[in-house]
Amino acid sequence: MSQSGVNKVVLAYSGGLDTSIIARWLQDEYHCEVVTFTADIGQGEEVEPARAKAKAMGIKQIYIEDLREEFARDYVFPMFRANTLYEGEYLLGTSIARPLIAKRLVEIANQTGADAISHGATGKGNDQVRFELGAYALKPGVKVIAPWREWDLNSREKLMAYAEAHDIDVDFKKQGKKSPYSMDANLLHISYEGGILEDPWAEPEEDMWRWSVSPEAAPDQPTYLELTYEKGDIVAIDGQAMSPAEVMSYLNKVGGDNGIGRLDLVENRYVGMKSRGCYETPAGTVMLKAHRAIESITLDREVAHLKDELMPKYASLIYNGYWWSPERKLLQQMIDASQERVNGVVRLKLYKGGVSVVGRKSDESLFDANIATFEDDAGAYDQKDAEGFIKLNALRLRIAAAKGRSMG
Amino acid sequence: MSQSGVNKVVLAYSGGLDTSIIARWLQDEYHCEVVTFTADIGQGEEVEPARAKAKAMGIKQIYIEDLREEFARDYVFPMFRANTLYEGEYLLGTSIARPLIAKRLVEIANQTGADAISHGATGKGNDQVRFELGAYALKPGVKVIAPWREWDLNSREKLMAYAEAHDIDVDFKKQGKKSPYSMDANLLHISYEGGILEDPWAEPEEDMWRWSVSPEAAPDQPTYLELTYEKGDIVAIDGQAMSPAEVMSYLNKVGGDNGIGRLDLVENRYVGMKSRGCYETPAGTVMLKAHRAIESITLDREVAHLKDELMPKYASLIYNGYWWSPERKLLQQMIDASQERVNGVVRLKLYKGGVSVVGRKSDESLFDANIATFEDDAGAYDQKDAEGFIKLNALRLRIAAAKGRSMG
Amino acid sequence: MSQSGVNKVVLAYSGGLDTSIIARWLQDEYHCEVVTFTADIGQGEEVEPARAKAKAMGIKQIYIEDLREEFARDYVFPMFRANTLYEGEYLLGTSIARPLIAKRLVEIANQTGADAISHGATGKGNDQVRFELGAYALKPGVKVIAPWREWDLNSREKLMAYAEAHDIDVDFKKQGKKSPYSMDANLLHISYEGGILEDPWAEPEEDMWRWSVSPEAAPDQPTYLELTYEKGDIVAIDGQAMSPAEVMSYLNKVGGDNGIGRLDLVENRYVGMKSRGCYETPAGTVMLKAHRAIESITLDREVAHLKDELMPKYASLIYNGYWWSPERKLLQQMIDASQERVNGVVRLKLYKGGVSVVGRKSDESLFDANIATFEDDAGAYDQKDAEGFIKLNALRLRIAAAKGRSMG
Amino acid sequence: MSQSGVNKVVLAYSGGLDTSIIARWLQDEYHCEVVTFTADIGQGEEVEPARAKAKAMGIKQIYIEDLREEFARDYVFPMFRANTLYEGEYLLGTSIARPLIAKRLVEIANQTGADAISHGATGKGNDQVRFELGAYALKPGVKVIAPWREWDLNSREKLMAYAEAHDIDVDFKKQGKKSPYSMDANLLHISYEGGILEDPWAEPEEDMWRWSVSPEAAPDQPTYLELTYEKGDIVAIDGQAMSPAEVMSYLNKVGGDNGIGRLDLVENRYVGMKSRGCYETPAGTVMLKAHRAIESITLDREVAHLKDELMPKYASLIYNGYWWSPERKLLQQMIDASQERVNGVVRLKLYKGGVSVVGRKSDESLFDANIATFEDDAGAYDQKDAEGFIKLNALRLRIAAAKGRSMG
Repeated sequence: MSQSGVNKVVLAYSGGLDTSIIARWLQDEYHCEVVTFTADIGQGEEVEPARAKAKAMGIKQIYIEDLREEFARDYVFPMFRANTLYEGEYLLGTSIARPLIAKRLVEIANQTGADAISHGATGKGNDQVRFELGAYALKPGVKVIAPWREWDLNSREKLMAYAEAHDIDVDFKKQGKKSPYSMDANLLHISYEGGILEDPWAEPEEDMWRWSVSPEAAPDQPTYLELTYEKGDIVAIDGQAMSPAEVMSYLNKVGGDNGIGRLDLVENRYVGMKSRGCYETPAGTVMLKAHRAIESITLDREVAHLKDELMPKYASLIYNGYWWSPERKLLQQMIDASQERVNGVVRLKLYKGGVSVVGRKSDESLFDANIATFEDDAGAYDQKDAEGFIKLNALRLRIAAAKGRSMG
Repeated sequence: MSQSGVNKVVLAYSGGLDTSIIARWLQDEYHCEVVTFTADIGQGEEVEPARAKAKAMGIKQIYIEDLREEFARDYVFPMFRANTLYEGEYLLGTSIARPLIAKRLVEIANQTGADAISHGATGKGNDQVRFELGAYALKPGVKVIAPWREWDLNSREKLMAYAEAHDIDVDFKKQGKKSPYSMDANLLHISYEGGILEDPWAEPEEDMWRWSVSPEAAPDQPTYLELTYEKGDIVAIDGQAMSPAEVMSYLNKVGGDNGIGRLDLVENRYVGMKSRGCYETPAGTVMLKAHRAIESITLDREVAHLKDELMPKYASLIYNGYWWSPERKLLQQMIDASQERVNGVVRLKLYKGGVSVVGRKSDESLFDANIATFEDDAGAYDQKDAEGFIKLNALRLRIAAAKGRSMG
Repeated sequence: MSQSGVNKVVLAYSGGLDTSIIARWLQDEYHCEVVTFTADIGQGEEVEPARAKAKAMGIKQIYIEDLREEFARDYVFPMFRANTLYEGEYLLGTSIARPLIAKRLVEIANQTGADAISHGATGKGNDQVRFELGAYALKPGVKVIAPWREWDLNSREKLMAYAEAHDIDVDFKKQGKKSPYSMDANLLHISYEGGILEDPWAEPEEDMWRWSVSPEAAPDQPTYLELTYEKGDIVAIDGQAMSPAEVMSYLNKVGGDNGIGRLDLVENRYVGMKSRGCYETPAGTVMLKAHRAIESITLDREVAHLKDELMPKYASLIYNGYWWSPERKLLQQMIDASQERVNGVVRLKLYKGGVSVVGRKSDESLFDANIATFEDDAGAYDQKDAEGFIKLNALRLRIAAAKGRSMG
Repeated sequence: MSQSGVNKVVLAYSGGLDTSIIARWLQDEYHCEVVTFTADIGQGEEVEPARAKAKAMGIKQIYIEDLREEFARDYVFPMFRANTLYEGEYLLGTSIARPLIAKRLVEIANQTGADAISHGATGKGNDQVRFELGAYALKPGVKVIAPWREWDLNSREKLMAYAEAHDIDVDFKKQGKKSPYSMDANLLHISYEGGILEDPWAEPEEDMWRWSVSPEAAPDQPTYLELTYEKGDIVAIDGQAMSPAEVMSYLNKVGGDNGIGRLDLVENRYVGMKSRGCYETPAGTVMLKAHRAIESITLDREVAHLKDELMPKYASLIYNGYWWSPERKLLQQMIDASQERVNGVVRLKLYKGGVSVVGRKSDESLFDANIATFEDDAGAYDQKDAEGFIKLNALRLRIAAAKGRSMG
């Protein structure tokens, strides 16, 4: 064992400057072997170049993986079964990717005999919590190294100096001329923080947004889509069967082209502060709207209400990093069980930033036109039943009022 | 007392054909005196003509009232403090008007010595429940007459025949050529049900919508608005002080002009069936978005989450007709208390059906740029604290994993 | 088909006077065939005598069944996995038996080709709701006949007169000298309502209680028990394997002998009124206490809290008659899934009406003495982690206080 | 300012050995002035002797206060309005005292110009969290010194050695022959942890319990009590007006004499571990039972259920140390508002460890004997209403069943 107590560490490695510096720093500070793990989760950048960069730093065990299908199928889709929104608006695009990364870090640690993991998340954000809670839940004795909480490289200048001093590839330094925003992307969204966004009164500049055209620039004709659901998941679009990741790619494209999915909000972080973030979530915005629509005809009322009452807690669990917890798993089982009959088709209209439901149908529909009709229902429903229904529901209110407890 | 046991009944009277027939039918069937009550709650039709129509049927006590300010101030605004949505989407435009009508029916009954109230809601819908639960809660001994649950005039033909046979004004019959939809309107929304909407797969025709232009027909330039909040309520728009009803009228106009607020959904009625409804809620759509934004910088995280967890229940209470209940009142007190610091300004962009928040500011803001910043925070936040935070939050997960309870 | 529209009805038949009158009344009023169904669910009375009584009234299809094991295994035990209490105190002894009766009524109706079911519950209580919601959920087209809501035999005198006029067995009339209380019993409890209990200030007389001795009369020596749990259910007592019904019989005996399980309360009925009831639930009282104890060492904290938060809703569902609903089923799946590791042994002390937990152990225990110890823990827990944990949990409070929002 | 950055610290000082060592250690390590604060919150020990001990260590500012009434009135009583139980059983006796201590520490710091506070809670427990969250919420810039998380005096031997080396009074050392349990006491309870209790299978020895006789040793005759409630609080016992602290003292005496209030459980700490504790809470046990009883006749059903659903969260807030948080305050306002009509009298029977309600009455009672009666109710309730009530509540279940979704 090295003097640091760490022999081998698996690093979540993006191939970018920051995590390259971390890869070097870990070797220097901890005198340990570094294994890099780079995943394609739909961030829209090539991951293969990370191999050469890692090699150049002397890394011997390099994991590069395409996790897009797993991410869509086992993380994003289950979350959307719950109509999940954090604080009424946020579709949890960053949050939902972290548990998958945490899981793979741990699995690779187990495969490679590593005793530690490391990541490039700062000490102020939610991501450190998500990575680490996941890692501890999956490998309780793991050592976690979070360089941003340890080192003193707390400015861009110091980082650049470190890179130069340690022969980290010049190519990285070019990347240094980066966006004024801190960004994160995967199949579900791209996020922007920092820069002028730190003033919640400042409107983001149009050129910040990368995945969607502005509603103003979107086509003047609406786009119609038909989404086919099985057990709460989209399995086909316009009759074309698609895998989960294909569904998301397709909807990101169509949604983005129609200016859909931009969000600008101030959210409450788990670590206790408010922060301002902007998000583009084209597919997710479409999926949330459509999922509620297919549920509206296939779910029992009380099941739907139970889901709605539990959703904020479920959303907080994911936001706060508790994907790998027994309480999230338990809620997930209930949510999944509720989707047994959530089958059918939703028809949507996309137009200049807006998504409208214009039709929904299902062999499992609980909508009963014979009962709901304003026309004569041929006795399907006895209107006289309503009197007793109201009278007994009113009874406690009448007793209270009669005893002098006026609600007026 | 008349043989029917009813001496005098206060009728919620719109001035339209159906409630005119009811006014006559009550006199004939119950041999009782009828008092009419007609309110302007922003439905966009003159209420004064109801006076002549009532007189023509021999009504002596006629109440015609402008309740728009009371409706906006005491019903709509309190509801929006909770970010209320029924089943994730419905802004409760019809539901929130009923308790006010119920209250006035009861007050007029008390003033006029009436022992009964009556309304024109059918036996299949939620409105009967809302009227009657309110009436019973406010006047527990009141007799409620719901003609649609009693009579056999269950087709348009029978109604028209009754009108002719009972000399109900020809003018009403002209109104018979009415919209294919059942509609309801007030300051908050206009709703459409019935007709082709009884097929949830059918897209409503463009000419159904009355309050908003289509997004396609909306201006090509966005409209920006600044809403000023005090204790969770909008008190000014673009610096111009406005009363609650003025706020709503203004936002209905601007929102509708920009194609904002259309909604098409299938909802679960309290009486047990699913029904399809279309709604236009321009002001409400803007208000919900903006209220969440002002809360995002002024509310404590846990208070916001508590509100979110209770919101579905609060929404169901209103939807189901329990405005005048002790549990709604209790929740309202809590919601209202939470709004003490919800002061500030929200800047919005309206464009072709979409509402975006582009800025929010407040003297009460809890957003702290010094702490949230990605830049050096000069010690406002100690990143090392995060380690302990994560470690203890992970402790139960680590103990469980160490004892063989793998989450993987 | 008979003129009444009912050909054959399955009656929940106790063999007592009231349901015997109903059996006759159904034949006379509905001119239909009556099938009787009598179940032993642990009420402590012979069910076989019901056969002769039914035959004497000309009943041809007579179902008499011992459902004790099914009742304990599929209804009582699942409910106790949730630590279910209605309104903080009531163990739902009556409520939990109704869904089983409803299910068997419907199954027998299906087997015998009956188109209706009938029961002897009054129109004021919860039991009618429980029977009928169950029946409708399981056989949506079933006709329900609730004689107490239809007939005018609304006093004991009228009932007796009817019995005499219709040759209902003299033996029943002897039973007429019945307890001043309305009682209901099954393996889980015996309940008392009516009589002097209708005054909530009146203490029940000692001789009302039937299943337990008074604490005063209980033995002067405590009784110790060891209950073995598997997946949240008791499978052995003092090392002796027992079936669910055996567990309940045994604990009723031991509990009752020790004066355990008496309860006197005013509860809120689903139909809108408050009512006073007294209950003896010896086994249930012991089981609740013990189940919480075994969960205390085997359940994750957040899972336990989630269960506690959902319990009141789950209890209300059962109390209100929604056992056979999709929302109860969904909650049950979650509750059951939570019990996977709820294995181990609880040691109890029973003494003069009290149940105390004096020990609990489990191979699945999450209690970790090394971490919890007040002694030196050899580094199992780093006390310094607590500082960061507290600091970040306090952050939102500190920011708010610093901005002038004093909590003082 | 001293080199340590701390000039003056207010210490929660019990007068015992541990906090005396802390008082000395703070002076030595932080080179700062120490202010001691000792409160009588009903722990049953004289507080005045703390003065001499503090003086002997050179403390100049010594605060000794009798906070019993404030504790009972502003902390215990409000908590009992919610029928608060943590994890179904624990009456929160330790938790509820901490916010008061935190508040006084901060107030004294403000009065004396101190910049820090200190306490003797360990780094493994909940109390550090409760003290510190309170302090940070009330004085966001305060410095907190928690010696147990800092020093290396982590065994009794080291502490004793320190005491001797620093001339801490011999008298303290005698106290060193202390109970094998870690104890905490106040008006609400006395708690025991550690020692043999660290084995959850071990039954505590009889001589551990200090406040109550064993049920076996309690009188053979029951004791009856009548508690008078106003707005949810007890204001008189057996007709004798009493202050909150008097109520608690009285009920502790009578309850303890009757063997009431012992509890042995394993609980989940906020810091992530399970721990075993034993508690004696005589007054609290009586108060919980009685409060539910008075609520049972005076609270609306849905208000009661809302309280029950929120109670677990409210209990967790107090247990976790969030008394001084906006969310606890908001919930408290709602709870308090619910108690407006919770007035009346509850009659209790205490016997050998058990508390039974034997009567409850109130001028505000919602119990209506005319409606609830099994006898003829003279038309107060129309049993026929129940049919419609059931039919519409069943509608969604029937539609689902008719569409093939069997619940069976």
